[in-house]
Amino acid sequence: MIILGIDPGYAIVGWGVIEYSGSKFRALGYGSITTPAGMPTVDRLERIYKGMLELIEKYHPDEMAVEELFFNTNGKTAIVVAEARGIILLAARLARVKIAEYTPLQVKQAVVGYGRAEKKQVIAMVTSMLKLPAPPKPDDTADALAIAVCHAHSGCSRLADYYNK
Amino acid sequence: MIILGIDPGYAIVGWGVIEYSGSKFRALGYGSITTPAGMPTVDRLERIYKGMLELIEKYHPDEMAVEELFFNTNGKTAIVVAEARGIILLAARLARVKIAEYTPLQVKQAVVGYGRAEKKQVIAMVTSMLKLPAPPKPDDTADALAIAVCHAHSGCSRLADYYNK
Repeated sequence: MIILGIDPGYAIVGWGVIEYSGSKFRALGYGSITTPAGMPTVDRLERIYKGMLELIEKYHPDEMAVEELFFNTNGKTAIVVAEARGIILLAARLARVKIAEYTPLQVKQAVVGYGRAEKKQVIAMVTSMLKLPAPPKPDDTADALAIAVCHAHSGCSRLADYYNK
Repeated sequence: MIILGIDPGYAIVGWGVIEYSGSKFRALGYGSITTPAGMPTVDRLERIYKGMLELIEKYHPDEMAVEELFFNTNGKTAIVVAEARGIILLAARLARVKIAEYTPLQVKQAVVGYGRAEKKQVIAMVTSMLKLPAPPKPDDTADALAIAVCHAHSGCSRLADYYNK
C-alpha cells in the first residue's frame, strides 16, 4: 500500500510518500509544496492544488492521511490554511484517493508512543523508522512522513475510511 | 458584465448571478448549493466544487465576488466553511473567472448605504433593486445577490482585481 502523508499549510505543505507492506515501511519520496508570500492568495491556492495533482500523478497513492486543523492561532492565517486544506482534500477526492485524518496527538502516539512527545522526538523517530540519511527538512516534511507512518500503523489504520464510509 | 456573487458556506452556499450594463442590474439566476448534514465531509466539499463548476458552465460569469470570512463562530464549523471557501476560490480560478472579495460591511455599505444595516434591510434592497418577485430564500441567496450588486456598484468595483494583480 502506498500512503501519501500531508501536513496541510498555506506557505508550506509538507508531504511524504511511504510504501507499507508486511510490517515494513519505506519512504518513496518526501518534500514540500511552497508558495511565496508575495503571491496573490488564489494563485497560491492554485499552486497547492497543482502540486497535489503532480504528487498523486507521480506516486499513485492508495490512501492519503492528512492532519486535522485546530484553531488556536491567528484568525487570518487559520482561514487560509483551512482554505488550502479544503483544496488538498478535493485534489485527493477527485483522484479517488481514500482519505483519512488524524489529530497531532494520534500521530505522536503512533510514531513515538506518547501523545505529548516533542517535535524533535517525532523527527528522530521518523528518520530512524524510515532509515533516512538525515532528518527531513523542513519540519512540515517530517510531520507529513509521521502522518503517513501513523496511518500505516495498525493502531491508526482502523480510521482509514473515516471519510469514505 | 456578468457577475457571480457567492456567500460561502458548507451546508449552504448562496449564489446569485447578475448582469450589469450601463448602470442597470438584472438577475439572471439565484439559488443555493446545499450539502446534507449526514454526508461525509469530503463528499460535501466535492459537491460544492461540482456545483460551482455547473454554475460557471451555465452562466459564464466574467467575475466572481465572494464574501470574506471572519471567525467569531464555532472553530469546527469555521474550519469546514473555510475549506469550502478554498474550493470555491479554486473552481473560479481554474475557470479563469476573476475574483474579488468583500467584507460584510462593504456589502451593506454598497447595497443599503449603511455598513451596520440589518439583514432584512439588505434583503429588501436587493429584492427591490433587482425587481425580484419575492425576497430570495434562503438568506444566503439574498446575501449572494447583495455581494454581486456590491461588486457591480462603482464604489466597490475598484477592488475587482484584488486577486488578479
